Amino acid sequence: MSYTEELGKRAKAAESAAAVASTSQKDRALAEISKALLENKELIIAENAKDIAAAKANGMTEAKQDRLRLDEKRIEGIAKGVDELIALKDPIGQVIDGCTRPNGLQIIKTRVPLGVIGIIYESRPNVTVDAAALCLKAGNVVILKGGKEAINSNICLGKIMRGAVEKAGLPADIIQVVDNTDRETTNELMRLNGYVDVIIPRGSANLIQAVVKTATVPVIETGAGNCHVYVDASADLGMAVKITDNAKTQRPSVCNAIESLLVHKDIADKFLPMIAERFKSHNVKLYGCDRTITILGSSVEKATETEYATEFNDFVIAIKVVDDIDEAIAHIRKYSTKHSECIVTSSLENAQKFQKQIDAAAVYVNASTRFTDGGEFGFGAEIGISTQKLHARGPMGLTELTTVKYLINGNGQVR
Amino acid sequence: MSYTEELGKRAKAAESAAAVASTSQKDRALAEISKALLENKELIIAENAKDIAAAKANGMTEAKQDRLRLDEKRIEGIAKGVDELIALKDPIGQVIDGCTRPNGLQIIKTRVPLGVIGIIYESRPNVTVDAAALCLKAGNVVILKGGKEAINSNICLGKIMRGAVEKAGLPADIIQVVDNTDRETTNELMRLNGYVDVIIPRGSANLIQAVVKTATVPVIETGAGNCHVYVDASADLGMAVKITDNAKTQRPSVCNAIESLLVHKDIADKFLPMIAERFKSHNVKLYGCDRTITILGSSVEKATETEYATEFNDFVIAIKVVDDIDEAIAHIRKYSTKHSECIVTSSLENAQKFQKQIDAAAVYVNASTRFTDGGEFGFGAEIGISTQKLHARGPMGLTELTTVKYLINGNGQVR
Repeated sequence: MSYTEELGKRAKAAESAAAVASTSQKDRALAEISKALLENKELIIAENAKDIAAAKANGMTEAKQDRLRLDEKRIEGIAKGVDELIALKDPIGQVIDGCTRPNGLQIIKTRVPLGVIGIIYESRPNVTVDAAALCLKAGNVVILKGGKEAINSNICLGKIMRGAVEKAGLPADIIQVVDNTDRETTNELMRLNGYVDVIIPRGSANLIQAVVKTATVPVIETGAGNCHVYVDASADLGMAVKITDNAKTQRPSVCNAIESLLVHKDIADKFLPMIAERFKSHNVKLYGCDRTITILGSSVEKATETEYATEFNDFVIAIKVVDDIDEAIAHIRKYSTKHSECIVTSSLENAQKFQKQIDAAAVYVNASTRFTDGGEFGFGAEIGISTQKLHARGPMGLTELTTVKYLINGNGQVR
Repeated sequence: MSYTEELGKRAKAAESAAAVASTSQKDRALAEISKALLENKELIIAENAKDIAAAKANGMTEAKQDRLRLDEKRIEGIAKGVDELIALKDPIGQVIDGCTRPNGLQIIKTRVPLGVIGIIYESRPNVTVDAAALCLKAGNVVILKGGKEAINSNICLGKIMRGAVEKAGLPADIIQVVDNTDRETTNELMRLNGYVDVIIPRGSANLIQAVVKTATVPVIETGAGNCHVYVDASADLGMAVKITDNAKTQRPSVCNAIESLLVHKDIADKFLPMIAERFKSHNVKLYGCDRTITILGSSVEKATETEYATEFNDFVIAIKVVDDIDEAIAHIRKYSTKHSECIVTSSLENAQKFQKQIDAAAVYVNASTRFTDGGEFGFGAEIGISTQKLHARGPMGLTELTTVKYLINGNGQVR
């Protein structure tokens, strides 16, 4: 039996204990994890230092090293995140729907855990704890496969969490961290049908595409976000500047930041200089169509298909002047990754048209796309943002880590 | 551009029209389809005759030929099925959840179509119409790839439906039938990411496994059913005979029929002869463990791992005498495909234990597993029975052919 199959087998053996664990037992395990993280700060920092040293030796950029680094404050933040899950409502056992059929059969639709979840992710070791804790709260078993750059940190965090889970009277195998950096293990994990119920990749578009291509286990895609703001002719231009600026520059590296700006031709002369002025303070690089260049001048580089299709994740934006809302909708349909799209408008008709015709997880009227987030939606926590249409769409909280089971009670009914 | 990509492109082009079509427009299309089927009975029967002739030439069994055959009565039945969808509630636009956040953002979670659905199926041509009509009612676009044995029937039904959809003012491409029997087209369809949002295979376990292995588009698995009845020590044995017999013999070819029977050792001496007597009238072939053979005699063949793991889909059953409910639960955990499982018992404790610990789409107390069905659950119609945990579990009706979209309304909110 391969190492990966062994992982799968151990996960399946722990599945039932996780599924039937009471809320208080799961919460006790979360409290133990939080406590153990704080008690083992020095150990974690020491193991993380090995990863940082390797990163330095491999010439990793300072910015990336910073994402990898765990210090006392960050560990406290991670532990606090785990503590916060305790307060969240346990989704397991919730009765969602039900009826009594004419033949007297009582049908009850209840919420149950998904089972064994494989998480494949990169870089930041905090995901190891965040994801494990969320899966545990929803009664699932998790197999975590992080990036090779964080292997020492991840193994250390895994050991600490496993000990804590055991201390709470649950099987340690509810949380397993892959302890090698072998690509073969990742590939096997994605094809471990029968042992793994779902794979959730978290990371770059490349990682996610590789998982989608390779996996035979069902996958929930997360994260790709080529998002747009469309400023309509009737928009409050002050509001449009505020929203566009926020959606682009408040945190450009994340998936709910915008990559393109569409502007109605009637207000382009007035609006484009306003937003360009604002962008200047953040050194945003501008690409634009010919009409944009005519208005803003030659500091704007000509935008091609490539720019409109790119998720820059950076202080870069592609601008297009459009004739009307229909052209805006058509453009978004062509380039959108169906994550978050926004119209700024004062027209009720156009607001409704945009929300009806745009196919995306979140469609905004007069608010920044940056709100597509489990915390901002009031979910308390999130495992990622689903950009596919099956199972979950948009921010995924605890509920999205569950499935359903029908309980049917009869007194001898047959067909 | 390949033929399959062309199909995908045309489907995507029709997607928006299907998604925003009003309920009355979709219902008009359904009515036109039903009418056109009745008006074209002779044509359908003539095209179906070509398939039947080919089947005969290829030595297809009479039973399979019968499943393939379309006669006047069957076409009327198919048309009636389409008519019945008109009465069902349109799931699109339903508001599922929502809130107003502390910052004033109004978040509305609504139901929207999945988009483009690929259905890959075998044999019975009625699926061509059933599946297309269900997808249409839920605002989806469908690409249908049936089996080569029904190719002439399927193409003919596709043409009739496309004409009807157009007559109702919707794009014909809402329904497309693959008009070749090329395996390459099927494989391409399963990997048409960007054009196809979900693949639903319907048919044999082999077909479904092939789709799971090949597809990069998300798949909803349907149909595999290795289901069990466990007769507890406290069971009403008359009820147990009735339920076991019904679950095995009422329609053994379908996925919600049982394949194995587990019997508590304390009542095995009494119950096994009762059910064996009943099975005799259906000529059910019996496999059993040593204890079963001791009780029922040598007419029972020895059951091995293979029999317990097999979905016979026939008048065949594997029997095992177990020491207690825990052994029954462990056996089911090992062999179940997580479709439908049943306990017959008078013990509330054991009923609750079974429903809590068994992981399956439908877990029955004192009723036949044959009720796992969209019609029996009150869904009005079903596209299949999902045996996986993502997106949908158990019978899939109109709701399961939808996804969600968040509409977010603000007045200038930024982060």
